[in-house]
Amino acid sequence: MKINNVEIEDTYAEAFPIQVSRVLITAATEYYARIAATEATGFGTSVIGCPAEAGIDCFVPSTKTPDGRPGYVIMICHPKKDHVKEQLVERLGECVLTAPTTAIFNWLPFERMEDKTLEKKVDVKLHFFGDGFESKQVVGGRNVYAIPIMEGDFICEEEYGVQKGVAGGNFFIMAETQGSALMAAQAAVDAINQVEGCILPFPGGIVASGSKVGSLKYSKFMKASTNHRMAPTLKSKVEDTQMPANVNAAYEIVIDGIDEATVAKAMTVGIKAACTIPGVVKISAGNYGGKLGPYKFELTKLLQ
Amino acid sequence: MKINNVEIEDTYAEAFPIQVSRVLITAATEYYARIAATEATGFGTSVIGCPAEAGIDCFVPSTKTPDGRPGYVIMICHPKKDHVKEQLVERLGECVLTAPTTAIFNWLPFERMEDKTLEKKVDVKLHFFGDGFESKQVVGGRNVYAIPIMEGDFICEEEYGVQKGVAGGNFFIMAETQGSALMAAQAAVDAINQVEGCILPFPGGIVASGSKVGSLKYSKFMKASTNHRMAPTLKSKVEDTQMPANVNAAYEIVIDGIDEATVAKAMTVGIKAACTIPGVVKISAGNYGGKLGPYKFELTKLLQ
Amino acid sequence: MKINNVEIEDTYAEAFPIQVSRVLITAATEYYARIAATEATGFGTSVIGCPAEAGIDCFVPSTKTPDGRPGYVIMICHPKKDHVKEQLVERLGECVLTAPTTAIFNWLPFERMEDKTLEKKVDVKLHFFGDGFESKQVVGGRNVYAIPIMEGDFICEEEYGVQKGVAGGNFFIMAETQGSALMAAQAAVDAINQVEGCILPFPGGIVASGSKVGSLKYSKFMKASTNHRMAPTLKSKVEDTQMPANVNAAYEIVIDGIDEATVAKAMTVGIKAACTIPGVVKISAGNYGGKLGPYKFELTKLLQ
Amino acid sequence: MKINNVEIEDTYAEAFPIQVSRVLITAATEYYARIAATEATGFGTSVIGCPAEAGIDCFVPSTKTPDGRPGYVIMICHPKKDHVKEQLVERLGECVLTAPTTAIFNWLPFERMEDKTLEKKVDVKLHFFGDGFESKQVVGGRNVYAIPIMEGDFICEEEYGVQKGVAGGNFFIMAETQGSALMAAQAAVDAINQVEGCILPFPGGIVASGSKVGSLKYSKFMKASTNHRMAPTLKSKVEDTQMPANVNAAYEIVIDGIDEATVAKAMTVGIKAACTIPGVVKISAGNYGGKLGPYKFELTKLLQ
Repeated sequence: MKINNVEIEDTYAEAFPIQVSRVLITAATEYYARIAATEATGFGTSVIGCPAEAGIDCFVPSTKTPDGRPGYVIMICHPKKDHVKEQLVERLGECVLTAPTTAIFNWLPFERMEDKTLEKKVDVKLHFFGDGFESKQVVGGRNVYAIPIMEGDFICEEEYGVQKGVAGGNFFIMAETQGSALMAAQAAVDAINQVEGCILPFPGGIVASGSKVGSLKYSKFMKASTNHRMAPTLKSKVEDTQMPANVNAAYEIVIDGIDEATVAKAMTVGIKAACTIPGVVKISAGNYGGKLGPYKFELTKLLQ
Repeated sequence: MKINNVEIEDTYAEAFPIQVSRVLITAATEYYARIAATEATGFGTSVIGCPAEAGIDCFVPSTKTPDGRPGYVIMICHPKKDHVKEQLVERLGECVLTAPTTAIFNWLPFERMEDKTLEKKVDVKLHFFGDGFESKQVVGGRNVYAIPIMEGDFICEEEYGVQKGVAGGNFFIMAETQGSALMAAQAAVDAINQVEGCILPFPGGIVASGSKVGSLKYSKFMKASTNHRMAPTLKSKVEDTQMPANVNAAYEIVIDGIDEATVAKAMTVGIKAACTIPGVVKISAGNYGGKLGPYKFELTKLLQ
Repeated sequence: MKINNVEIEDTYAEAFPIQVSRVLITAATEYYARIAATEATGFGTSVIGCPAEAGIDCFVPSTKTPDGRPGYVIMICHPKKDHVKEQLVERLGECVLTAPTTAIFNWLPFERMEDKTLEKKVDVKLHFFGDGFESKQVVGGRNVYAIPIMEGDFICEEEYGVQKGVAGGNFFIMAETQGSALMAAQAAVDAINQVEGCILPFPGGIVASGSKVGSLKYSKFMKASTNHRMAPTLKSKVEDTQMPANVNAAYEIVIDGIDEATVAKAMTVGIKAACTIPGVVKISAGNYGGKLGPYKFELTKLLQ
Repeated sequence: MKINNVEIEDTYAEAFPIQVSRVLITAATEYYARIAATEATGFGTSVIGCPAEAGIDCFVPSTKTPDGRPGYVIMICHPKKDHVKEQLVERLGECVLTAPTTAIFNWLPFERMEDKTLEKKVDVKLHFFGDGFESKQVVGGRNVYAIPIMEGDFICEEEYGVQKGVAGGNFFIMAETQGSALMAAQAAVDAINQVEGCILPFPGGIVASGSKVGSLKYSKFMKASTNHRMAPTLKSKVEDTQMPANVNAAYEIVIDGIDEATVAKAMTVGIKAACTIPGVVKISAGNYGGKLGPYKFELTKLLQ
C-alpha cells in the first residue's frame, strides 16, 4: 500500500490496557490553563521510568466548561488504578492547586460513567487542604469545594472517573533525512492533537529512541535497550537491520487513548499527515507478534 | 520602605539547603530543546508531593554550547543527593533521551567542580541503553557517549555535578485585585527568568496557594494546610488575618538557586519588577521565625 | 442588567460595512502556517493608519484542508474592494509566497459564493512570479498553480471571494485596576478566538487607547484624538468623564466579522468571558448615536 | 572550504544601504511587549511589496530598560529616511499606542547618536493624540510624554535616531530534503536571533522563494520573478540550474543590520548553526556580481 508514494508496511501496532483519568483544568485565561496543564503532565512519558503517562488531550473553550472559563483536558494514565489515584492527588495537589487562577473538574463524560468500561471513580480529596475553611458549592451543576487560598477560592471536584483505555498505539515514520522524518513527525503530532480522547505522552509527542525488550550485552541489569535494528547509524554494522537503504532517520509516535476507536482515529490522521511531507519513505508500526497486547491496529486497514 | 508607593514589609525570607544539579539540554533547534527541557522538569514544584523540584534555568545560544546547537539549562533539586541522582537518571533517560535531536551535558561549570561547595558528582549511566553499540567520543572537549537510536546518535555526558544550593527563597505580592497581583507576579517571573542560576519551580513560576505547617482541624493526617491568614476570602472570618483591608489577592514567588547570591539577585529583580504594576499594595516574605532555615533574605536590605 | 455582579450598560455598539476576504494558509506544520499568517496580518489594526485591517480568524486541522495539511484562516479587510485586492496581492505575495512550506486557498465557502452578500471575486495572480515555469494543477478539487521556488513548488489559488462584512463591533471592559481590566480583556480574546468568521485586528485583540472623532485642541490637523472621557487619569480633571469612580482602567475589544450574526456571537461570548474575572465593574460599548453605522448591537439583547 | 562536511561556496553576499530605526517597546510583561512588537513589524518582509522592512531585534530585560519593565527592540527600515519616519508614525501610532501596557523609547544608543553614521533624528509626534491632556515627564532619564488613554498613561519618546544600515545580507542553505533544509534554516534563525542589531525581515526569518531581477517570459510587467536556476523541481528542465544533483530544497536567510560588522556576525553564526544539521549539502550566497551593492560578505572569510 502506498500513500503519496510512501510505503505503508503491512503490519500492525500492538497496544495494551491502561487505566485512564481525564481532568479539565480551567483558568482565567487560556495561558494559565495551559501552564498548569503542562506542569501537571510533565515527567510523564512512560511508566517504565516515570510515575505516570500523562499529557494534554484537548482545549475546551469557555462556552463549554462548567465555570465559563477556558480549559485544557489532561489525561493521567497508569496500568494500576491505585497509581492513577495517587498520581491525581499529587499532580493536581502540587501542580494545579498551586497554579494561578485554576479550577479542576472531572472530564470523563457522564455517559461513560454508566458504561461498563468505567470500572470505578477515585476520590481526590483536596478539600482537606482547606483546613476547615473550605465550603461546598455548585458550579455549572457540579458539586465542588471552594478552598480559600491566597488568590481567592480554589474550586475543585473530588470524584474522578477512571476507565480502562488503550496505551501504546504507535507508528514509525522513516525518512531519507532526519529533517524530513522530524518534519513528518511534527505534522503527525499536529494532526493528532486535534483528536479528542488521546494523548501523546512523549516530549512534543515524538519518540526519538526506540527500545527492544531485554539487552544483548547488558541483559543482567537492563530490561530494555536500544532497538539496534532501527538505528540508522548501525545499518552497515548489524545484520538484522530493519532500516531501508535510503532511510537515515526514524521517529515513533506513541498514543494513549480512552478507547480503541480513538487510538485508531489518531493513528489514521497522524499517518496521513506524515505522508504529506517530502522525503518520507515508509510507515511501519511496533508489535510483539501479538503475544502481549490485546489490541491490534493494522495499518492498511486503518488507511483504507 | 516604599518602592513606587508599594510597601516593602520589614521582614525576611527564610530558605533551606537543597542538593542541586544543572544539565544543559541542546537540540537541533531552540524549540526542541525547550520541549525536552519542559517535559524533563514537569511535575516538579515541591518535594512535598513531587519527586523533585525542577525547572528551566536559562537559554544558552549555539555559540556557547559544546555542540554548537542551542540549549536550555535545567535544574533538578532534592534535599537528598541520592534522590537527585535517581531523578537525573529517570528524567534524562525518559524525557530527554527520548526527545527529538537532543543531547545532554553537565552544566555546573568547571570552577565550581573544585569548589568546596561541590560535594560530589553523580553518575548517570545512560550508555547501557546502547546495548554495546555505544561508543566514546569527544564533543566540544567533553567526553561523551554516542548511543545509536532511531534518529541517529544520542550524545550524552555521564558525570553530573551536584552541589549544595538554596531552596525556598520567596516573596509575596499583595494587590488590590487578583488581576493586579497576577500581572505583578508575571512581571516578577519575567525579570527572574533573566537571572542565571535559579529556577521558579511552581507552575509558570507563580504560587497561588500558600501553606502553613500543620493544620488546625485535620492535624491528625495533614502535615500542611492552607495559610488561612493569607486568604483574602477569609479576611472577615478569621481574627489573625494578615491581609490588609485593601488587598484582595496575593501570590508567592518561590526561588531555588545555586547559591545565596543568586537567590538574593532573583528576589531583588523580581520585587522591583512587581512594584512597576499598578494596584500592588505590599511586598512581604515567608519565614518560620528563623528556626528552620539557615538562609535569611531581608527585603529592605536587598532593595537598598 | 448584571452578569456576575458586573453592570452591563444599556447601550449598543455601532458598526460599519467593510469588504472582507478570507484566505486559508496551510503549511507542513501548524507552526509554519501560524508564522506566515502572523506576518501576513501584521500592521493591520485600523485603516485609519494601516493599509488594511487584518488578523487570524481560526485554525483548520489537516483533515479539513484541501491539501491535508494544517492551516490558519486569515481575514484581510478594507472599506474599498480595490484595496482588498491590492492588499491580498502584496500580503500574500510578500508574506506567504516567501514563507516556508506554505500554500494558499480561498476560504469564503462555496455556498457564500452564490449568496447575494458576495459582491465579486478578485484575482490574485501570483503565477506570473513563476516566469512561465508555473503549471496548473488540481489540489483537493481546486484549480491551483504550482510555482517552482527554492523549497519546491508553491501552490496557490488565484480567485478570492470578497464580501460585505461588518467592522467595528466592540465593547468596553472597565475594572477596578489595570490588571483586572487586562485579565478580563484577555479572557474575552480567548473566548472570541473560538468564534469562526471574525478577527480582532488590534494587537493581541485588545485596544488600550480609545479615540474620539476630532480634537478639542489640535482640531486643525488631528481627525481623531484620545477619548478623554474614557481616560482614568483624567477622571478628576475633566467634567464630562465617563469613568465610574471605582474604575481605574478600561480596554476595548474591536471585532471585524463576515456578518452581523458572527459579530453578535463574538461580542456575546467575549462579554460573558470578561465577566468571569474579579474586579470587573462595568461593560459598555461605543457608538456615534446611530448616525454613522448601519449595524447596532445592543448589549442587553445579546446577553439575554 | 567545508564545515561539518558541508561545502561553503567560494562566493559572497552583496548588500545595500538602508535607513534604519530602532525602537524599544516595553510593557508590563514580556508577553504584551512581544505582542505589540509583532504587530508593529508585520507586513514588513521586503520593500518591493511591503511599506517597510521590519522585525524584532532583541529582548531587553527589565533591569536594562528606562522604565524597569521588559521590552523588545524592533527595527523599521526603508531605503528612504522619509519613509522610515512615516512608517514609525503609523506603526507606532496604530500598533503600539493601541497595545496593552506598552511604552516606547528610542533605541539607537547615545554613542551612535554622535557618530557620523547617524544622519539625523526624526520626530514621531504622538503627543498630539493626547489632545492637550498630555504632559511632559522624565522616565529613566529620558524626556517623554504621558498621554492619557483608557488603560492609564501611555509613555513615549518623540525623537528617534535613523542611521544608515545594511540590508540584504544573505546566505543560502541547500540540503538533500526540504525537511533538512528547513531544520537548518531554523537553526540559523535561532542563532541569529541572539545577535543584537539585526533583524530577519521574512516570515520566521526564512525565505522559501528566491527571485531573479526581471523575467524571461513576463518581462513587460514583472520586475522580478522566480530564480528558476535555484528551483529544485526545475533541475532537469532548465539548462542553467544551480541546484546540485543531491539537493532537493533550498532556503535563504536575509539579514538587515545596523552596520557591516553586525551583518557579518549574523551570517557567521547562522551558517555555523545551519552546518550542524544532517543532510545539509552546501552553503552559498546571493550577489549581483558586485555591480549594485557596496557591501560584500565573502563566506570563506567570515568562516575562517
